[in-house]
Amino acid sequence: MIPLEIRSILEEMRAERIRGASYLARRGAKAYLLLSELREGEELEDALREMKREIPAVNRTMASLYNLARFIPVTGDPGVVRSKAEEFIRLSDEARKEIGNIGSELIDENEVVITHSFSSAVLEIFRAARKKGKHFRIILTESAPDYEGIALARELDSLGVPFEVITDAQLGLFAKRATLALVGADSVTRDGAAVNKAGTYPLALACHDTGVPFYVAAESFKLHPELSSDEVEIVERPYARQGYRVRNFLFDVTPWRYIRGIITEFGVLVPPKEI
Amino acid sequence: MIPLEIRSILEEMRAERIRGASYLARRGAKAYLLLSELREGEELEDALREMKREIPAVNRTMASLYNLARFIPVTGDPGVVRSKAEEFIRLSDEARKEIGNIGSELIDENEVVITHSFSSAVLEIFRAARKKGKHFRIILTESAPDYEGIALARELDSLGVPFEVITDAQLGLFAKRATLALVGADSVTRDGAAVNKAGTYPLALACHDTGVPFYVAAESFKLHPELSSDEVEIVERPYARQGYRVRNFLFDVTPWRYIRGIITEFGVLVPPKEI
Repeated sequence: MIPLEIRSILEEMRAERIRGASYLARRGAKAYLLLSELREGEELEDALREMKREIPAVNRTMASLYNLARFIPVTGDPGVVRSKAEEFIRLSDEARKEIGNIGSELIDENEVVITHSFSSAVLEIFRAARKKGKHFRIILTESAPDYEGIALARELDSLGVPFEVITDAQLGLFAKRATLALVGADSVTRDGAAVNKAGTYPLALACHDTGVPFYVAAESFKLHPELSSDEVEIVERPYARQGYRVRNFLFDVTPWRYIRGIITEFGVLVPPKEI
Repeated sequence: MIPLEIRSILEEMRAERIRGASYLARRGAKAYLLLSELREGEELEDALREMKREIPAVNRTMASLYNLARFIPVTGDPGVVRSKAEEFIRLSDEARKEIGNIGSELIDENEVVITHSFSSAVLEIFRAARKKGKHFRIILTESAPDYEGIALARELDSLGVPFEVITDAQLGLFAKRATLALVGADSVTRDGAAVNKAGTYPLALACHDTGVPFYVAAESFKLHPELSSDEVEIVERPYARQGYRVRNFLFDVTPWRYIRGIITEFGVLVPPKEI
């Protein structure tokens, strides 16, 4: 049985509205750390077996949760669980930092970068570019109905990076004012499609139509080794407006052909035709 | 001088949030009717000269206002103004009805129609299709930040047409679930681009990408004889979210190449390559 303390972390993960796949994977890893303090032996093994189902079930679209559950072995030894969970967190920290480093090289002086929703990998790229002394400007969506964009606006304010917030419906209008598009991903499918906040796919189309290079930033643990783009099940959350139910699927799927490259900690993956 | 009563109608037109170009043109025509009761002779001529500037200035993107101002001659005879304004309203009523008739022929049994924002011409098509006894379903956007979509949902409720409301960012996700796209237009430029609520262009791109035919419904008085798509000046309205200014340009421009046809009262205009 999964202890109550861990159940409540899983509950909290399911309820998370603003932060994405990287945050949730890290939160999941911390749940494993806590579990290694609470259980040992057969009880730990039982709990770990349950976690293998429960962690990916928090959000089946997120490869990071799938890969986290695969990363932690089923064992009765709390020390092994602790060290693997710590390793996951460390690798994830290093990956994000390296993505910042690699991705910031794509940002030239006076670049105008358009993004959608909140991605911690994309934010790391902005942070790294700022540290390198580059000057650039961001166009970002408010990202209704949870307004992750406003959370990003606050971060950019504190970094001192100038930005404009737009409504989601203006993605097409503003794509042509940008010189680069950078988004995160909750998962990358095995056929190279990016699963990310709904609105990403129309942004990619508008960038394609106007010749703006479109990049996805994703740590390698977001690459899903099994899932293909036509198998993606998209989570929906309840949402209503003026008494009417409004459909609220969180993600959409951007096919490989609209993606110039996927920025990972190992380098930029480019579509097969360009290799 | 434009009389105060007319000024306040112009003010009200500028403040209108939900209803589009057809409504505003009709409201403008009614302003001319009222003017014909209030002024005559030289005073009427002066006021009409001012109206020629003021009516298009309510919203420079709307060809209907431009065409209305051209339709009413500068004259001192109130009878002429009255009869021309009445003719404009009658032609506009007939045009909308005929668009309903022509457009509803595009809706097949069990069609799934995706639309964006609120268009009275599109609503007329739905009404006509319903009258013809057709069964079909609508996917519509809430259309932030003024939520014209909810106004459309209410109309569909009273027509008994089933529908789903989605957030604007899900346009790409839902385009592939539709079999037909129908939107209105505030203007059609002389090079055949549709100026319509921001979000229309990404919808057209998503329809193009997934093979869903994309049609625009627009009375002929929405065709702008002079404006070309690169000259369109897009009106912006103030909008803020959680203390941050959010850009709020009302329209975007969908190029001819993504439009399967423009439904007018004279028939369906198709792109030159298809003629």
